Amino acid sequence: MPKELLMIPGPTRVSPSVLKIMARQIVSHTSDEFVEALEDALKMTANLFQTKGQPVILTGSGTLGMETAVCNVVERGERILCVNNGYFGPRFGELAAAHGIAADSIEFEWGRHAEPSLISEKLDKGNYKAVTIVHVDTATGIANPIREVGDIVKDFDALYIADTVCSMGGMEVQVDNWHIDVCLTGSQKAIAAPPGLTLLSFSEKAQHAIEKRKSPVDAYYADFGRWKPVMQDPRSRSYFATPSVPLVLALREALRLLFKEGLQNRWRRHQIIADAMRTGIETMGLKIFTEENFRANTLSVFEVPEGVSDADLRRVMKDTYNVICAGGLGKLKGKTNRIGHMGIVTPDNIVLTLNSLGVSLNKLGRKTDTRAAIAAAKGKLKSFQLASRSR
Amino acid sequence: MPKELLMIPGPTRVSPSVLKIMARQIVSHTSDEFVEALEDALKMTANLFQTKGQPVILTGSGTLGMETAVCNVVERGERILCVNNGYFGPRFGELAAAHGIAADSIEFEWGRHAEPSLISEKLDKGNYKAVTIVHVDTATGIANPIREVGDIVKDFDALYIADTVCSMGGMEVQVDNWHIDVCLTGSQKAIAAPPGLTLLSFSEKAQHAIEKRKSPVDAYYADFGRWKPVMQDPRSRSYFATPSVPLVLALREALRLLFKEGLQNRWRRHQIIADAMRTGIETMGLKIFTEENFRANTLSVFEVPEGVSDADLRRVMKDTYNVICAGGLGKLKGKTNRIGHMGIVTPDNIVLTLNSLGVSLNKLGRKTDTRAAIAAAKGKLKSFQLASRSR
Repeated sequence: MPKELLMIPGPTRVSPSVLKIMARQIVSHTSDEFVEALEDALKMTANLFQTKGQPVILTGSGTLGMETAVCNVVERGERILCVNNGYFGPRFGELAAAHGIAADSIEFEWGRHAEPSLISEKLDKGNYKAVTIVHVDTATGIANPIREVGDIVKDFDALYIADTVCSMGGMEVQVDNWHIDVCLTGSQKAIAAPPGLTLLSFSEKAQHAIEKRKSPVDAYYADFGRWKPVMQDPRSRSYFATPSVPLVLALREALRLLFKEGLQNRWRRHQIIADAMRTGIETMGLKIFTEENFRANTLSVFEVPEGVSDADLRRVMKDTYNVICAGGLGKLKGKTNRIGHMGIVTPDNIVLTLNSLGVSLNKLGRKTDTRAAIAAAKGKLKSFQLASRSR
Repeated sequence: MPKELLMIPGPTRVSPSVLKIMARQIVSHTSDEFVEALEDALKMTANLFQTKGQPVILTGSGTLGMETAVCNVVERGERILCVNNGYFGPRFGELAAAHGIAADSIEFEWGRHAEPSLISEKLDKGNYKAVTIVHVDTATGIANPIREVGDIVKDFDALYIADTVCSMGGMEVQVDNWHIDVCLTGSQKAIAAPPGLTLLSFSEKAQHAIEKRKSPVDAYYADFGRWKPVMQDPRSRSYFATPSVPLVLALREALRLLFKEGLQNRWRRHQIIADAMRTGIETMGLKIFTEENFRANTLSVFEVPEGVSDADLRRVMKDTYNVICAGGLGKLKGKTNRIGHMGIVTPDNIVLTLNSLGVSLNKLGRKTDTRAAIAAAKGKLKSFQLASRSR
């Protein structure tokens, strides 16, 4: 049995050097080693986000990041606009409601992109404190045009909140240039650190909105103001709550590796790999669920062909090749399977996954030309090898 | 230079087998391995807490646990009573205020215990939805009589919320027998798992209060109702937010080791070690800050003797022996130093720490009979060796 190959849309595998750090004995949260690591991680987070805003790293999931983003800059009784075209978009509306914030939504079909011009029309008609959007929806595989939406939101008096949980570190995101006021992501996806941290940034405008609040933030652990002294200067050793020391040390190492590869190279690797994976999938006669030209480079969502059960397909891929994929999420449950290809994913991982997929389909009675699919994928991967060689 | 000996009141060192698990490649949060680990960890949490209530494990710090405890069972506009005699007690009042909950406090001097009869009088006069108390305050080293307070609170129509962050796993806590409705702790102290998880339990009465809420919980990530399906049956693979997979696996191992030692044995080890440490400290002519008979078994807080700087003392202990202690917290900053002795701490650790403390005091010009202190401590530790041998 080969070693498990985790190809789900997060959490993702992490580098051996990240695991090595996880294995180290716990150190104090006030030690030089820890505060330097937190400082490094925060600086690299700002670089990764391409922002001059205030980075924040909290122990918790991406959902905590989403809540932290909204509940600090929006007040009880105010209204936000949520762009919904997937599983995670409506979560912004739900968590806003929990904080007494009204949320209008603008809906787009699952698997289709959010259309900036329609968002513009909606903003014309309402008075919104903030607009929320999910860059890459992990259920549908869509990559929303958050840059174009940002160009629209900036002309309104609204804050722009972007969830980049499933894109940051694998796809281009330029927080400042794209006018994102609060950006959030998770440690466990394209950044390839262990799960358990959420990373955020707050623009000057967002911080100004926080300072000008009429009411206090109705959250404690997620209160930006309480974390700010820690995040502005970790060496001050200001205490608010004990961070997950090993996760922060591991994140620092994952970010170090990310910048060693280089942001542009990393984006390009994800793009080539996504292209290869989808070429392979389509060569097998399967249908990609997601609208063309708006497909995320971090995962592929394909429709399970008729006559095959999605769960059987995942099971055979696991039992035979130890390749782990994910099922459909939300209303796509049973209809799609999802392959994550982000973080430290390599061309070899793609070939192995396609081989496992093709052979498993054949085992389940769905005739598939695995060899052709792999050849097509390899054709796409060539450009990666050429790019790597020229570096 | 000897290997670092971390003797702070959390995070604490963890066992090699816990680190080994931290070093393992990330697995899916929906894998059999993970959901079984979460199920195990939840069962062991309930055993550790001695409760039939619903255990919950969240990614985040103890502060998130405190907030989760309060904001689920208490509603905006209701009133709670906070027992305050340390650094962390008032945090309950602060986080209540963030959620629009009024908080009265009953104050006791730092270093003195909370007096149950006075809490009883206060409860007679007010109408409180809940009473909050911190079992062991990490700043003062006090162990509050939470059992006796529980006996009083049970006769009032109030929920009893206890923070056992710095006691659970090292000192006796009986959630059900002591009438605690919501109990919370952290992974990183006497349980000796890495920092980053908070563990809670909700009694039937607490769950009933949640079901009968007039308003929805004004939190999202900390909303008990959203986590309940996951925590009631991890094998159902209900999804709410991605947990920190490696931290949960590591917690399971730490809890496994805890029960291998046995709860009673563990409490006894902490008691003997605390006794030895304080005997040693007092033999050096230093004063324990905390009231006698109410001293926690998980840490010792001593007053820094005149003519010695607290920071110098910690620095010399670190530079010479690589023993890491903590400084005073809050208004005790500069006046006390703190030695944590919880989790996987051994008699040898106590002797090494006392030696480092005594020699460092001498280096700083404070004459100290280190040998006598160690001999006195060893006298106390004998009962541990005898107890271990009889097992």
